[in-house]
Amino acid sequence: MSPASPHSVGVEVARHTQGLDTVTEETDELAVEEPLEIRVEGQPVAVTMRTPGNDLDLVAGFLLTEGVIDGWDDVHAMAHVVDPAVPRENTVDTVLAAGVPAARARSADRAFYASSSCGICGKTTIDRIFSRIEPVGPPPLDDPLLRVLHDLPDRLRTVQTAFQRTGGLHAAGLFDGTGELLVMREDIGRHNAVDKVIGAAIQTDLDLRQTLLVVSGRAGFEIVQKALVAGIPLLAAVGAPSSLAADLARRGGMVLVGFLRNGRFNRYGRLSPSPGAPPVG
Amino acid sequence: MSPASPHSVGVEVARHTQGLDTVTEETDELAVEEPLEIRVEGQPVAVTMRTPGNDLDLVAGFLLTEGVIDGWDDVHAMAHVVDPAVPRENTVDTVLAAGVPAARARSADRAFYASSSCGICGKTTIDRIFSRIEPVGPPPLDDPLLRVLHDLPDRLRTVQTAFQRTGGLHAAGLFDGTGELLVMREDIGRHNAVDKVIGAAIQTDLDLRQTLLVVSGRAGFEIVQKALVAGIPLLAAVGAPSSLAADLARRGGMVLVGFLRNGRFNRYGRLSPSPGAPPVG
Repeated sequence: MSPASPHSVGVEVARHTQGLDTVTEETDELAVEEPLEIRVEGQPVAVTMRTPGNDLDLVAGFLLTEGVIDGWDDVHAMAHVVDPAVPRENTVDTVLAAGVPAARARSADRAFYASSSCGICGKTTIDRIFSRIEPVGPPPLDDPLLRVLHDLPDRLRTVQTAFQRTGGLHAAGLFDGTGELLVMREDIGRHNAVDKVIGAAIQTDLDLRQTLLVVSGRAGFEIVQKALVAGIPLLAAVGAPSSLAADLARRGGMVLVGFLRNGRFNRYGRLSPSPGAPPVG
Repeated sequence: MSPASPHSVGVEVARHTQGLDTVTEETDELAVEEPLEIRVEGQPVAVTMRTPGNDLDLVAGFLLTEGVIDGWDDVHAMAHVVDPAVPRENTVDTVLAAGVPAARARSADRAFYASSSCGICGKTTIDRIFSRIEPVGPPPLDDPLLRVLHDLPDRLRTVQTAFQRTGGLHAAGLFDGTGELLVMREDIGRHNAVDKVIGAAIQTDLDLRQTLLVVSGRAGFEIVQKALVAGIPLLAAVGAPSSLAADLARRGGMVLVGFLRNGRFNRYGRLSPSPGAPPVG
């Protein structure tokens, strides 16, 4: 039996190996999923289904990647709201620093609607993002790092303790330009794992423009968007990217790597390893 | 080269096998991801990132599983909104049948907030669901079906043509009590694949209480919720369930199967194969 963890919980299970015949009753460790309400200045702005643990990292990353804050300096205070009627801590409130407009929080999850009067499509969605962020620079990559890129998912997996128990968690890991793991977070939602990693990083003096992000699953639009807003110049996914994710990465000057497994990977976007040198690929 | 498909699009890719040294430039088929705006009576109620194709099924399923409609009879008309400024069809509007309150649509994606005054947690989230639906009955299962349950993911995979090209799509398949595939849909979002299958089914005379749903990925809270609201009594996932998904399934009288692969599966919840017989497991 594994030790108690906020990431997993024991649940009764019947294990079948051949239909009804061979069934054993056991306890299974499942990934915990609970709603988290994100408040800014007391007002709810979003609810996400997440795995408890590192909630403040999650909220910090969410607020950054949704454009509510530009960095940790924009946060005056952040804490769980403890409601006497509810034993679990599933609400986090944030007080913004003086001068940071709380109005940005109210528009965070309504941003899609702003473009709906002129119709909605991938292009307008991408245009909206670049109305508030700059493209990222080339990643901190040179030949040696690109050669060890294959190893990064394994390095991530070795520290993914909750996944090993539950099989149900996504991981995101931030690496430096030498392939060293800086921060790893797990969550049942892949976007939450990314927000947790980014939120943890912005509370330190890490320069995200000198990092790369590896995710255990697929790379959809939302994952690329979050990494791009945070200024991360390379995103590598073990799984498949989507069309819109590849479009967004290209527009943002990000290198997107997909299918990073079995000693291979696919790269979407151009490499410019050193200033002055001709672009690679 | 695969034929053109709304599910996938060709994108330039550099394939690396060993770092920078062995790289080939090719065209890769990526799963298409585009936003879809869902409107009811002209008012936007949600935007989802989805794979185009079967959009009306997606909207029908979404409206049912979010509690806006109780069935296809509640829909008077549903169609894409064609905006001359935007070539792609990424908005669907629905006119409800006479007497169906459009107000339910406005609260669809706000439902979480209703409970926030008393705090938010998994239990209140589950309680909210059972304020509007009944638990489902026992699944249409007997020993022979349980024995072929292992084969269902393979049966799903053989018809998953877009996944085979892109590696980036989730599938959901509805089967009858003999293990025959009734409806299959693919999408980049697993919740969308489930909405598409349910939406397709409610446009026919299928009795969802006599079906089972198989999904290619994990079974989180949202997937169980959708299946439960649709009245499906058994959900089987190739991947892991979450804690809240197992809680919700148990409360709803649904049989939840996880890790359905390699000739094995885990069952969360009790079986009652035939009325009068003692419960199995």
